[in-house]
Amino acid sequence: MTDKYKDSHLKLFSLNSNEELANKISGHAGVPLGDLFSRQFSDGEIQIHIEESVRGFDIYIIQSTSYPVNDHLLELLIMIDACKRASANSITVVMPYFGYARQDRTAAPHEPITAKLVANMLVKAGVDRVVTLDLHAVQVQGFFDIPVDNLFTTPLFAEYYSEKGILGDNVVVVAPKNSGVKRARSLAEYLESPLAIVDYEDDDKHRENGYVIGDVAGKDVILIDDILTTGKTFASASAIVKEAGAKDVYVVASHGLFTPGSSDLLNNTEIKEILVTDSVKTNTIKPDKVKYLTASELIADAIIRIHENKPVSPLFEFDKNHH
Amino acid sequence: MTDKYKDSHLKLFSLNSNEELANKISGHAGVPLGDLFSRQFSDGEIQIHIEESVRGFDIYIIQSTSYPVNDHLLELLIMIDACKRASANSITVVMPYFGYARQDRTAAPHEPITAKLVANMLVKAGVDRVVTLDLHAVQVQGFFDIPVDNLFTTPLFAEYYSEKGILGDNVVVVAPKNSGVKRARSLAEYLESPLAIVDYEDDDKHRENGYVIGDVAGKDVILIDDILTTGKTFASASAIVKEAGAKDVYVVASHGLFTPGSSDLLNNTEIKEILVTDSVKTNTIKPDKVKYLTASELIADAIIRIHENKPVSPLFEFDKNHH
Amino acid sequence: MTDKYKDSHLKLFSLNSNEELANKISGHAGVPLGDLFSRQFSDGEIQIHIEESVRGFDIYIIQSTSYPVNDHLLELLIMIDACKRASANSITVVMPYFGYARQDRTAAPHEPITAKLVANMLVKAGVDRVVTLDLHAVQVQGFFDIPVDNLFTTPLFAEYYSEKGILGDNVVVVAPKNSGVKRARSLAEYLESPLAIVDYEDDDKHRENGYVIGDVAGKDVILIDDILTTGKTFASASAIVKEAGAKDVYVVASHGLFTPGSSDLLNNTEIKEILVTDSVKTNTIKPDKVKYLTASELIADAIIRIHENKPVSPLFEFDKNHH
Amino acid sequence: MTDKYKDSHLKLFSLNSNEELANKISGHAGVPLGDLFSRQFSDGEIQIHIEESVRGFDIYIIQSTSYPVNDHLLELLIMIDACKRASANSITVVMPYFGYARQDRTAAPHEPITAKLVANMLVKAGVDRVVTLDLHAVQVQGFFDIPVDNLFTTPLFAEYYSEKGILGDNVVVVAPKNSGVKRARSLAEYLESPLAIVDYEDDDKHRENGYVIGDVAGKDVILIDDILTTGKTFASASAIVKEAGAKDVYVVASHGLFTPGSSDLLNNTEIKEILVTDSVKTNTIKPDKVKYLTASELIADAIIRIHENKPVSPLFEFDKNHH
Amino acid sequence: MTDKYKDSHLKLFSLNSNEELANKISGHAGVPLGDLFSRQFSDGEIQIHIEESVRGFDIYIIQSTSYPVNDHLLELLIMIDACKRASANSITVVMPYFGYARQDRTAAPHEPITAKLVANMLVKAGVDRVVTLDLHAVQVQGFFDIPVDNLFTTPLFAEYYSEKGILGDNVVVVAPKNSGVKRARSLAEYLESPLAIVDYEDDDKHRENGYVIGDVAGKDVILIDDILTTGKTFASASAIVKEAGAKDVYVVASHGLFTPGSSDLLNNTEIKEILVTDSVKTNTIKPDKVKYLTASELIADAIIRIHENKPVSPLFEFDKNHH
Amino acid sequence: MTDKYKDSHLKLFSLNSNEELANKISGHAGVPLGDLFSRQFSDGEIQIHIEESVRGFDIYIIQSTSYPVNDHLLELLIMIDACKRASANSITVVMPYFGYARQDRTAAPHEPITAKLVANMLVKAGVDRVVTLDLHAVQVQGFFDIPVDNLFTTPLFAEYYSEKGILGDNVVVVAPKNSGVKRARSLAEYLESPLAIVDYEDDDKHRENGYVIGDVAGKDVILIDDILTTGKTFASASAIVKEAGAKDVYVVASHGLFTPGSSDLLNNTEIKEILVTDSVKTNTIKPDKVKYLTASELIADAIIRIHENKPVSPLFEFDKNHH
Repeated sequence: MTDKYKDSHLKLFSLNSNEELANKISGHAGVPLGDLFSRQFSDGEIQIHIEESVRGFDIYIIQSTSYPVNDHLLELLIMIDACKRASANSITVVMPYFGYARQDRTAAPHEPITAKLVANMLVKAGVDRVVTLDLHAVQVQGFFDIPVDNLFTTPLFAEYYSEKGILGDNVVVVAPKNSGVKRARSLAEYLESPLAIVDYEDDDKHRENGYVIGDVAGKDVILIDDILTTGKTFASASAIVKEAGAKDVYVVASHGLFTPGSSDLLNNTEIKEILVTDSVKTNTIKPDKVKYLTASELIADAIIRIHENKPVSPLFEFDKNHH
Repeated sequence: MTDKYKDSHLKLFSLNSNEELANKISGHAGVPLGDLFSRQFSDGEIQIHIEESVRGFDIYIIQSTSYPVNDHLLELLIMIDACKRASANSITVVMPYFGYARQDRTAAPHEPITAKLVANMLVKAGVDRVVTLDLHAVQVQGFFDIPVDNLFTTPLFAEYYSEKGILGDNVVVVAPKNSGVKRARSLAEYLESPLAIVDYEDDDKHRENGYVIGDVAGKDVILIDDILTTGKTFASASAIVKEAGAKDVYVVASHGLFTPGSSDLLNNTEIKEILVTDSVKTNTIKPDKVKYLTASELIADAIIRIHENKPVSPLFEFDKNHH
Repeated sequence: MTDKYKDSHLKLFSLNSNEELANKISGHAGVPLGDLFSRQFSDGEIQIHIEESVRGFDIYIIQSTSYPVNDHLLELLIMIDACKRASANSITVVMPYFGYARQDRTAAPHEPITAKLVANMLVKAGVDRVVTLDLHAVQVQGFFDIPVDNLFTTPLFAEYYSEKGILGDNVVVVAPKNSGVKRARSLAEYLESPLAIVDYEDDDKHRENGYVIGDVAGKDVILIDDILTTGKTFASASAIVKEAGAKDVYVVASHGLFTPGSSDLLNNTEIKEILVTDSVKTNTIKPDKVKYLTASELIADAIIRIHENKPVSPLFEFDKNHH
Repeated sequence: MTDKYKDSHLKLFSLNSNEELANKISGHAGVPLGDLFSRQFSDGEIQIHIEESVRGFDIYIIQSTSYPVNDHLLELLIMIDACKRASANSITVVMPYFGYARQDRTAAPHEPITAKLVANMLVKAGVDRVVTLDLHAVQVQGFFDIPVDNLFTTPLFAEYYSEKGILGDNVVVVAPKNSGVKRARSLAEYLESPLAIVDYEDDDKHRENGYVIGDVAGKDVILIDDILTTGKTFASASAIVKEAGAKDVYVVASHGLFTPGSSDLLNNTEIKEILVTDSVKTNTIKPDKVKYLTASELIADAIIRIHENKPVSPLFEFDKNHH
Repeated sequence: MTDKYKDSHLKLFSLNSNEELANKISGHAGVPLGDLFSRQFSDGEIQIHIEESVRGFDIYIIQSTSYPVNDHLLELLIMIDACKRASANSITVVMPYFGYARQDRTAAPHEPITAKLVANMLVKAGVDRVVTLDLHAVQVQGFFDIPVDNLFTTPLFAEYYSEKGILGDNVVVVAPKNSGVKRARSLAEYLESPLAIVDYEDDDKHRENGYVIGDVAGKDVILIDDILTTGKTFASASAIVKEAGAKDVYVVASHGLFTPGSSDLLNNTEIKEILVTDSVKTNTIKPDKVKYLTASELIADAIIRIHENKPVSPLFEFDKNHH
Repeated sequence: MTDKYKDSHLKLFSLNSNEELANKISGHAGVPLGDLFSRQFSDGEIQIHIEESVRGFDIYIIQSTSYPVNDHLLELLIMIDACKRASANSITVVMPYFGYARQDRTAAPHEPITAKLVANMLVKAGVDRVVTLDLHAVQVQGFFDIPVDNLFTTPLFAEYYSEKGILGDNVVVVAPKNSGVKRARSLAEYLESPLAIVDYEDDDKHRENGYVIGDVAGKDVILIDDILTTGKTFASASAIVKEAGAKDVYVVASHGLFTPGSSDLLNNTEIKEILVTDSVKTNTIKPDKVKYLTASELIADAIIRIHENKPVSPLFEFDKNHH
């Protein structure tokens, strides 16, 4: 827990998606959470009343747009509108989990690009800056014309595995499907480990006849993805690498959505540990082997650096020799 | 049921909030509903895939943003984005019920104006025109800089009551609270009946010590409001006009949300009939005396008139001598 | 008169519509009016030259867009343009009277929403914030996406009548037509008095056969509206409440336009006193019983609070027990 | 008078600044003027009601923003807003005289650029295209990002003088001040005459010690400017060229504002004829030697060409050999 | 060569980057190229004069923003501006090669997202739609809020290799670096061949110690990427797959930039054939084994389908059984 | 050289067009140039990497958009994008030479207004303010809605000639063509000298049969224009004034582009001296008699005044009695 932060021009508010994380961020930053009344009426409409003045303040709003994503997104937009009309000096949204980020292109004709829609809504509502954590595709930064600080989680994970001795040539970092290879490559470099990919003969929709491109036989495997939703991708990849001779299988994802059923599915695998950050709070049953790593300190540091006009990039430095 | 409409440049789509109404509108207009795939993933995100080409068409999307309002609003915004990117010639949203319309001002400091936020989101997503039904406040039209056609329901209601002989000096039209007097005035003029208002000694929040301004003794009363949500306003007003000597009490509202509990509350009153349009579909239990009047023909006529560049205003004409 | 205000980042300018009010505001705020040259050429074009640097300052421009409204509005827009190009840090317009506010909806087909047009013009010209006094409809706040501080006059009026002992059960607050009931309700609550409404059998355009909804017999009446233009509404309502047995009739309006002929009309009524604020300066003849209550202190306080990032809402608190 | 124009998608409306010109344009184009109700209330606010449907039509609005410029500009903006909300397909404003065009730069520090402000207001209100006549500075076209058709009057004037035999080496075309030389050059080329300039020793504000740059002795002189306002520029230039030995002095301007006093001033000069178009209607007394040349046919032709997607430039061709 | 296209509302213009391709597109579409004067002054400024009227036409402008990219981009923007001001009905830019597309994210702190900047410039200049060929990242579609038709080249390449019998299990499709795996996956599926990836031990900047993830021994290899610039990626990957036992090595890229030196580099490899489309015209020396496949028919078909409001997706269908 | 400037919120960057001038400005202002990596790839794309944090700083970017104008303009736009995304507090572009400024109107039908396009690009990229030097037409200020500080060079030139004794009645200031008379007038007033104009019988394109309007016989002549490009205008005008009896001929222009060939052309004239500022750096051969006058001190002073919110206009004061 940090001392109280001295700058009186900063206010931090938490909306309803992940108050636990917000409290931790608040603690690390030394900035108390502002008073806010936000409820849903019986007809589902959200009503927000800010219980203190924001006039002239730099406002930071913490909200992961996780399940139920539409309610959390609207709550965020309404809060931005309230802050803007109440004369906030600037509005930064801190979205540890950025919902709809995977809808970042028209995968088929006549489809929307919902991630861009969300970006446009945020900007139109009045936001001045976005802070987020491990965006699904880095190109989503370009959906905005305002500053976007995308905090990387790979150094956190690298530090965690390094401390546990899971690194070097005995480990293979594996992308569990043929996208997201860059994320696996990044962790592999931190850990100085080789890389492999799980691929399927047919396309993503009917994933069948999966196989490993690369060599995992006799190695520990870390399967890495940005989002764990139903667990299917990881469960399938874990079976495939096991069949290909992998020893221990670790799973790591920045965001653990754990939709209903994912727990059962993942408990029925040989995965040894599932590592996620606390970016998403969910009330569903979690798999037995989940381990949460908090991103709150990273986010708190980023908020303070941004507020003090210091660069954010030093937060991602990782000293391999430290361990 | 109308014959098939001949103009091949028009396409009509229904989203998920009120397919029954959409089907009726489709039938009256003679325009089939387009093929559309819209579902929610397990993490709550909405995915839309339009199953036919919209390139170059004038698209009309039917969606009431009723409960769950945030899901229905996002579904609408995403559909607009999809149509825009798929090169629709124009996009008109038909919102029989316009959610969040009551949040049209900052009632207290530090509050949002969510109705304006919704207007801004629709426009930013790419909508060219809005068709709606009995907006809570007519000023909400001015929240847009695109054409907004606000269809009036009062002529529908006036025709209904006239046909049943509930009109003239034996009837008093009563605003059940001190706002919405204009709406009551309008119905009173159609019916050539006097006007009264239910007021409370304290403000809206703690409605106590209600009384009638005006005279209802020995008269039938029509209580009129735009939205019936919890039923509290009508239940309370009904008791007050009864105590003031009213005979039969009728209730009419354009939009029947009927949130949970409203049924019990309204069943325990002396209200003789509750009239609403089918603008909102809700799965909750309805009060016993509900009667639905369809707005589908009015809406279908408006869509066709708009598409054919004919004025919409003739739809609101009401011939008192007809009955 | 207040001491000179210490903050050197604030500049206050008055345009030509109401220099008397601007001088009072300047006095209360302790901020001198800036030097400005604004004239009309022989062809009617307005030329503005700011006679001092505004570079980097927070500029407050005082202008009621009252008669001649188009000249005053253009003068305001041109001044905003000049300040923006001359690098003002921020531009706040203080519009004690907001012209065209009544054109806030399309009352009939093919009509403009001029209040929204005015809002758009102000924003496009470069204004950052609007301060106004008792807007005709609170929804007009939502015509803007910038902060709008709408100062309430009801507490001023309540204090005035309380001090004169015109309050409680002996007084009825009456809305002189079937809109604006909310404003009457607000004053009634401050004074702890009952409420009534003047209504007409036919619509607003041909006001005939007016009558009182509610009971005014033997009571003093305060007729309240936001704008007094031709005086017809008040003159007519005053006759109707008198006929319904009212004792003394008081009239109060936030903005006194007093167009030509209003004086004669109002002098021929039994109205005891007409209370207005000094938001509008007009050269026409005033009725005999006009009393002006200055809003300058309220406005000056609001400007200073805004500039110092303090909440404005405390200005509207009214201590009933104070009297 | 032309036959009735056949295209039913075009509607022409005239606002209040110059109905005479609008009627002539209507006659030449064969398109009747639409029905429109536009009046000023006693408090100066303009109310517009379009008396026929504009839904889906291409609307052309004729309005010179001449004296009283602010009223005429607001009337135009309000009309645009009404057309946009009433679903016009496109809105073209035809401004034969573009008020405030001379305020096209910050002549001194802390000055507005009002011509740009006017352009921004028109575009924000919803205009799709501007047609105007002899803009003060051609750069004002660049104040817009929509198409601007600037109709040239020089060919009209050249044809007029050619027909009267005022052309060739016996005539000198003179710019009456050191701006506007390009306009004089253009007429000089049409007439195959030499060019001269009236200049002053000190700057524009205190025009003293004027003299002719170039040679006018024994020649007829045509003084040309775009706008005749007070008449001072022409009166002074006329005296100077006379002193320099000029024979007959002709004056030509595209727009005759003739502000009060201009008549007396110009009657006291040796100017033989003052030629202006009918772009501006003014109720002031005109100088004795004014001659009006109608621009209505040129404007009508331009409207029809624009509506039919034909190029406008052929309208400015001038066949010197024709005479 | 197709017959002359009948629709008179369509005009096609070619700018200076690739007139050869534009001529082929024109031929296939049956639409002649419009007359246009575009040159660079001695100071480098581009001057454009459209030699025919575009008023009311749907304009398609063909321009690859290849080397010199800044000149070609400015030429495109200036042409858009000219078309917009000359009243084009709509403006579609056809950019077979979209320069700066690789700068689609901030790879390091303090970097621009130039692909988004280019998108914003195009939209601000006035473009209504973009047609492009095999975008570097599909997310770049989301940089726009206007329709973007991204034409796929993979079916063209699949058809080419199928016809030559290079398909099935004897071939491995290889991504020559750890991004772009999706593109390789897509070609692999068309050809029903397995997939592999060339990876490097260190990051992209110092590509050293490359190795193949997957198995290429004894197989023919197709290395696929979107852009061939310096040839380094392909030259290095070709050596690595050869070392890993590959038989014949084919190279395919959608866009062949062939910067100076690339020819020498590629001639010194064991690559059997380099296949590119004609999206880019370059004056540099090409490698010996280059084969050009024209995309002109695909683009011409897309233009006509877009103009006729038909879906574009059927152009990407590929009948494997056809061969 | 000035002392180091104390304000730590200001950062100054130079792009590649004129580093020499940037270094001088940096020296005069006492503000070091920031570290920046900007290069062109082999395919012509520009890559920028800012080598220090700009978060929260007021950034001033020095770049003349001279030859090669498109590269320099794109470099500027990309740098603005980078600064904006890297959270600069404000971005001011200092463009001593504003390329494309002469394309400020549609000189012929179907032409762009490229100066407006450039203005729009700058604003859309994210610039907050523009500082420039002697704009071709002052109306270009109105192409922006942000503050534009246009620094005047005439006082610099007046001071230079005054010090050399070239002033008063023995000198005639001559506009070398029939535009730009205002600029000549301004210098003439500073020097208290008469004015003349070089005109041509035919239009600008085929300048033939030039002659002097006004009297230069026996006088020294200063030919003044804003931009010296090919030298043709000056060479021709110099011959014409010489033929008309001028004694010494001086040439002065704010911006010396000196395109290839200009040197030869100008060396073959009787011009005594060619004075230009150092706004443009060019690698071409210069004429023998060029003299550079630095504008760096003027620009440095302007930057500091802007940053300190002081008026810029005092920089243009010229004390005639000083000499």
